[in-house]
Amino acid sequence: MPTLTEYDTIAAISTPMGEGAISIVRLSGEDAVTIANHFFKGQDLEHVESHTINYGHFIDPENSNLIDEVMVSVMRAPKTFTREDIIEINCHGGIVATNKILQMLLGYGARMAEPGEFTKRAFLNGRIDLTQAESVMDLIRAKTDRAMQVAVDQLDGSLTNLIKRLRQEILNVLANVEVNIDYPEYDTDELTTKMLLEKAKLVSTQIDELLKTAKQGKIMRQGLATAIVGRPNVGKSSLLNYLTKEEKAIVTNIPGTTRDTVEEYVSINGVPLKLVDTAGIHDTDDIVEQIGVERSKKAITQADLILLLLDGSENLTTEDHNLLALTKDKKRIVILNKMDIERQLTPEYLKDEFGIENVVATSVKLQTGLDAVEQQIADLFFEGIEDSNNTVMVTNSRQVGLLQQAKNSLNEVIRGIEVGMPIDLVQIDMTNSWDKLGEITGESAPDELITQLFSQFCLGK
Amino acid sequence: MPTLTEYDTIAAISTPMGEGAISIVRLSGEDAVTIANHFFKGQDLEHVESHTINYGHFIDPENSNLIDEVMVSVMRAPKTFTREDIIEINCHGGIVATNKILQMLLGYGARMAEPGEFTKRAFLNGRIDLTQAESVMDLIRAKTDRAMQVAVDQLDGSLTNLIKRLRQEILNVLANVEVNIDYPEYDTDELTTKMLLEKAKLVSTQIDELLKTAKQGKIMRQGLATAIVGRPNVGKSSLLNYLTKEEKAIVTNIPGTTRDTVEEYVSINGVPLKLVDTAGIHDTDDIVEQIGVERSKKAITQADLILLLLDGSENLTTEDHNLLALTKDKKRIVILNKMDIERQLTPEYLKDEFGIENVVATSVKLQTGLDAVEQQIADLFFEGIEDSNNTVMVTNSRQVGLLQQAKNSLNEVIRGIEVGMPIDLVQIDMTNSWDKLGEITGESAPDELITQLFSQFCLGK
Repeated sequence: MPTLTEYDTIAAISTPMGEGAISIVRLSGEDAVTIANHFFKGQDLEHVESHTINYGHFIDPENSNLIDEVMVSVMRAPKTFTREDIIEINCHGGIVATNKILQMLLGYGARMAEPGEFTKRAFLNGRIDLTQAESVMDLIRAKTDRAMQVAVDQLDGSLTNLIKRLRQEILNVLANVEVNIDYPEYDTDELTTKMLLEKAKLVSTQIDELLKTAKQGKIMRQGLATAIVGRPNVGKSSLLNYLTKEEKAIVTNIPGTTRDTVEEYVSINGVPLKLVDTAGIHDTDDIVEQIGVERSKKAITQADLILLLLDGSENLTTEDHNLLALTKDKKRIVILNKMDIERQLTPEYLKDEFGIENVVATSVKLQTGLDAVEQQIADLFFEGIEDSNNTVMVTNSRQVGLLQQAKNSLNEVIRGIEVGMPIDLVQIDMTNSWDKLGEITGESAPDELITQLFSQFCLGK
Repeated sequence: MPTLTEYDTIAAISTPMGEGAISIVRLSGEDAVTIANHFFKGQDLEHVESHTINYGHFIDPENSNLIDEVMVSVMRAPKTFTREDIIEINCHGGIVATNKILQMLLGYGARMAEPGEFTKRAFLNGRIDLTQAESVMDLIRAKTDRAMQVAVDQLDGSLTNLIKRLRQEILNVLANVEVNIDYPEYDTDELTTKMLLEKAKLVSTQIDELLKTAKQGKIMRQGLATAIVGRPNVGKSSLLNYLTKEEKAIVTNIPGTTRDTVEEYVSINGVPLKLVDTAGIHDTDDIVEQIGVERSKKAITQADLILLLLDGSENLTTEDHNLLALTKDKKRIVILNKMDIERQLTPEYLKDEFGIENVVATSVKLQTGLDAVEQQIADLFFEGIEDSNNTVMVTNSRQVGLLQQAKNSLNEVIRGIEVGMPIDLVQIDMTNSWDKLGEITGESAPDELITQLFSQFCLGK
């Protein structure tokens, strides 16, 4: 084991605040066991086995007052989340008792943990790298199955391993270059240059592949912002209900940034959709005023994908034409609904007359044509990705930015060789790309980056 | 060990929903270990020691997909919360992964736990009684230190022990009565009657003592609903800030039932106050319209205690007189504020002229006189309770109702003896009081009561 840097002992409440059945106060650091033991009536925690759960009472030693009935988990370094001694005090939920326990620990030598500080220690102590740390937060914030899967794969080291392999390729060639610079008597310049060029192109191509996943990775993480628009009574609420109420999707209602908006997440054929501005639609669309022009415009602007509903049993109205015009430059699927009753419009007519592509005829009422809508969504999304299930994805802008920088340096290597630059200058660019890739995993990340990254975490993690 | 009734295996998420650092999915029942083990990659949970924490991965066995990195706590019966085998799956927070894990457990033989079902099993399996079960929920819902302390004392068995002692007293005397009925040749009728009367009176008095704590117990649990009223600019917001911002109090902001109201809890000299309708006050009271007459009236109606502020530097206005009239039948403390500037009013004047008692002169601005306000609050609250710290309290209406019924039966015993009723009839009432006391702890509680009681619990507890 590498010797750990010594940090102080931190404490935080690690469960979401609220009235729940269980809440956990977590300690990590050298004095974690001693601090917890001071308040614990039960087994002597200093002498229990590691990774055991110990029943007892949390007591205020000053007046012997009982604070809570608790289960204390003792996990000793190094086989812990932070690689330090960890104590988890599992108490009977509730805000007051949990806070009180935390306050008492803080009064006896523990320091209030900063957001993400437990995970930061896991990183600083070498248990996980930065992409894994990021995936921990992605996992917590995941809104759909797919987002979760991407996060959990990354947590498991899929991106880390790929980046490490690319770095190793670069390192091998750099080592060779070193040899040639140190022993110029072996005239292998030409061979070295050739190898440099080959490797730079190879790694650059692989980075390109990875960058291609970035857009999908971001959508996986955040959901594809999708707006359902159409004039009143065209079937928006029925479509929304179909998309959200079916058991096939995990639906989560999460309060939006303003009180009016509700974000809903559904997973359609593996594509996570974040449904935008569904608040008005949910009630009913019988009321004409429900979704006004301004509101539609706003929803359209925010969305990456538009599901535009038309009433197939009536001719196009001015409002329909307006909505078609507003969405013409967007990724959209035009849904010709109410095909169960008298047809006035057909997909062919819309295409021939107005050049509207991607029209699907449906009857949301009879639930026909909806599979085709779902297929269209998946087709639009997975365009250009071969097997989305097994692709390592980059999911955030930090990773994308660094990959871009690494690629730029490789392009400099290629250009340098082509114009006949001296090897030791080319070598600098090659080393630079190695560094940038290292920043992704944190192997060569500057302190400020690390501080900034972990500060976005939630408290207690 | 008594043989346990066999129940099926239940599962639920036991942490509050939300994005937190840790979430826990809990299983209890005979198959808990087997079900968890099916999805666990790591140690074989069937063969690990009890009360150990096991690191590993939660896997979907159908496609070997990783769902989450988890710590699984294995706790085998009988030394567990429910006295059954318990598994706690400690995962990386987040809604999707936690839900997914629960769904997979439910798909492999676990049943979704009803609210409070874990605690219900703890009761049915004899680990805790009903007053302790109730205190678990009180503890979770506690808003102040004192409420927490009352709950935790009750969880520790303080009320249980007192009830048990009273039941034992009754049982002893009933046993004696039985002997006398079975062996009427020993003519001890008179002695028996005397003993019955004595015990009935004794237990009745002790129940009375307990009932006296009910109101305080309820307030401890719910907080004393307190309204701060007064005309604009009199210092309401400063007083509110003083009461809530000082470090001496635990303050919790909990959204009220309507969007407008915010409940704030503070603890003043051990008295938990629930401050009513503080939303308007918080902003500022410079705006005259802020707290209108209607709003004041409503706050006064809802409150158990009124803190009425008057401006001591001005003569009483019509509005002051209105507020004094509105609150005259309430428990109130009249605070004569702004005593730092020119005085127009004094407590003596208010008492002599208008018969207003409980007037405290303060300067909230200079923070003088506020100790006296706090003392008044405590005096009003603890009136008639000798040592509030060590009193066993009844805290809910179920307990109060049953105590009342037990007392009524004892009064019937006393009345019966006094009018010379036959002992075997008196005995029925005595037995009845024994039963009612047993319902409090659950020793003789009917099934419906138990079902109803636990249904008020939160999910996962």
